[in-house]
Amino acid sequence: MARKAYVSSVGFTPVGDHWEKSIIDLAVEAARGALKGSGVKNPGQIIVGNMFSAVGASQEHLGALLASALGLSGTPAYKIEAACSSGGAAFNVGYNLVRSGAVDSALVVGVEKMRDLEPEEVSQALAMAESAEYTQFVGATFAALNGLLARYYMEQKNVTRDELSSIPVLDHANAVTAAHAQFRKAITPEVVGRSAMIADPLRLFDCAPVGDGAAAAMIVAEGGASAGKGKLSEVLGGKIATNEFSIYERDDMLDFKATRDAFRGATAEAGISPKKLSLVEVHDAFSVVGALSLEAMGFSKPGEGSRDAKAGKYSRGGELPINTFGGLKARGHPVGATGMYQIVEAYLQLTGQAGKNQVEGAQYAATQNIGGVDSTSAVHVFGRSS
Amino acid sequence: MARKAYVSSVGFTPVGDHWEKSIIDLAVEAARGALKGSGVKNPGQIIVGNMFSAVGASQEHLGALLASALGLSGTPAYKIEAACSSGGAAFNVGYNLVRSGAVDSALVVGVEKMRDLEPEEVSQALAMAESAEYTQFVGATFAALNGLLARYYMEQKNVTRDELSSIPVLDHANAVTAAHAQFRKAITPEVVGRSAMIADPLRLFDCAPVGDGAAAAMIVAEGGASAGKGKLSEVLGGKIATNEFSIYERDDMLDFKATRDAFRGATAEAGISPKKLSLVEVHDAFSVVGALSLEAMGFSKPGEGSRDAKAGKYSRGGELPINTFGGLKARGHPVGATGMYQIVEAYLQLTGQAGKNQVEGAQYAATQNIGGVDSTSAVHVFGRSS
Repeated sequence: MARKAYVSSVGFTPVGDHWEKSIIDLAVEAARGALKGSGVKNPGQIIVGNMFSAVGASQEHLGALLASALGLSGTPAYKIEAACSSGGAAFNVGYNLVRSGAVDSALVVGVEKMRDLEPEEVSQALAMAESAEYTQFVGATFAALNGLLARYYMEQKNVTRDELSSIPVLDHANAVTAAHAQFRKAITPEVVGRSAMIADPLRLFDCAPVGDGAAAAMIVAEGGASAGKGKLSEVLGGKIATNEFSIYERDDMLDFKATRDAFRGATAEAGISPKKLSLVEVHDAFSVVGALSLEAMGFSKPGEGSRDAKAGKYSRGGELPINTFGGLKARGHPVGATGMYQIVEAYLQLTGQAGKNQVEGAQYAATQNIGGVDSTSAVHVFGRSS
Repeated sequence: MARKAYVSSVGFTPVGDHWEKSIIDLAVEAARGALKGSGVKNPGQIIVGNMFSAVGASQEHLGALLASALGLSGTPAYKIEAACSSGGAAFNVGYNLVRSGAVDSALVVGVEKMRDLEPEEVSQALAMAESAEYTQFVGATFAALNGLLARYYMEQKNVTRDELSSIPVLDHANAVTAAHAQFRKAITPEVVGRSAMIADPLRLFDCAPVGDGAAAAMIVAEGGASAGKGKLSEVLGGKIATNEFSIYERDDMLDFKATRDAFRGATAEAGISPKKLSLVEVHDAFSVVGALSLEAMGFSKPGEGSRDAKAGKYSRGGELPINTFGGLKARGHPVGATGMYQIVEAYLQLTGQAGKNQVEGAQYAATQNIGGVDSTSAVHVFGRSS
């Protein structure tokens, strides 16, 4: 009983330090862009993707607050949270409500304010993606867990330091020409390998930075009353999946089951072979997470994600470009907003608005957005509309 | 294109002090009840309604955490937050996904852990329902805002102290025989009127208490593959609406527009006259909020909500029983869980499982769940199934 759903416009802020703007200022800026471009005046639903506004901005109730700030009070509005996959999860709910006919349009806004926190407060906030009773209790930060994962990955799969550096290097290369990226500067594997140690073996440049930002998309139904005026990209499929919550609970912590299931579900719903994808936005919160994600989606064999990146497979001009605006490492990772930045970027690519970062002839794109260490994964597949 | 949706079973914990249980323990207990009763083994979606687990339990990512704890990892899962209407908003999304055909079943769990916080921390947490930049900035607590509202209401509408006490008194009377209620003790208007002053004119017994709890419901589709074995109550209609965010932004702060719009939308979708309702679960976080809610839904004329309660209109055996298990004041108000407690109670009434609190011959019930001072309102209408 599903009908077609489209992204008809997007809005976003640059990722970085927004000292002068509150979390709701950022959300309004992105939302206004999506509203203006789409021509939709009264979206059927406003959904905010956000992870930790409670600790980052002493603010909950972002749904009604945003609706009211936009002059759209009345509109059903709420926040969706799934750790760093909050943006992708919010989009998935909007997509399902539109395609199943519950509403004719949905405005989805991902937002996060991280820079007002001290670094140790950011660590505490991110640790809430993991269990308070077990993981936090023993003092394991989120970076520490990913460090364990990276060490195990390198040893089990004979991955070298230089290979591990290849996704961050790729990200930074792509971000040079991305106006909204947080770090628009190329780096080398040597720079990654000698950067400060964060959680052995992960170094500073293996890790996505801390930043503020907001990104929004308007989803409209095929022929719906609210179908707007913007350029369309069809949402072909989308799925959220979960995994055993923490890495220590899993049979094989190198198997990103949530990503695998979400990717399979989304491509099956889209009815396209993964080989048809022109680009993929990958959740590389840490270098190792990017590699394991590429492996879970089947683009690289187990253990080969970083090596394939080093060989150029995932670069612009390669077999399957990824992170075309810099990914989490260089575009930035305002956690609850990241999934929506990925979707914005896929939209820009498929509507030919990616400028210097354009993947020529892009027909299909996928976005993969993780919460925790693949505890949740939200994957969406988009198509070009003629 | 909508199909019928039903609540097929519920689960819940008593409301109160659960020192020995974590937030996820509470959610698991309620969820297991709903799973067991429904016979649904693999719900299509797990949706957690919660307001402030970040500050209450240092825990986000409740969706995946709950799915994993239930042995249901794989299942799409996320949290929905809309301040104190988080439970109602979560249910609304589940209901819309089921009735529109996106999924065949959805497990919705409202949960909150408040008692691990110090009282001033609870005040700070609740204040996040209001704007950090304006309302919090001037030091207004949530009780203070409701105190202003109560003073204005009493003066504008000539409401007496004894009249204002009538909804708390009604709540406590109904809770005496409610096993899951936090305060099972009758009180008099005099007790309310001489209780400690909280925010003039609101006294301790005008205010809903602080408690822990979780409540869950399984929503199943008509004839869906997952339709379970539990007793059914049909979800006839449901709507979320928002208002201008804060009371100082509104033309008339005594007009609960979000509740009015949500109630109209839900009853219109249900296709039933409000006069057919056998009972209503009303969001009386403060006595004045209960009165204004009854007025916004049209059951009482403006200014008459408390007086009508005093006259017995809303008591068990009255014209329209409300808060049949004690409402927010006496059953308790674990904020993100409250909307789901209301829905659980409507279900118990309509399936004849309300025990000593049964409203005889109950055919239709409505639940009204507010976030902020009517910044968000989620209303649902339920029917008895033959």
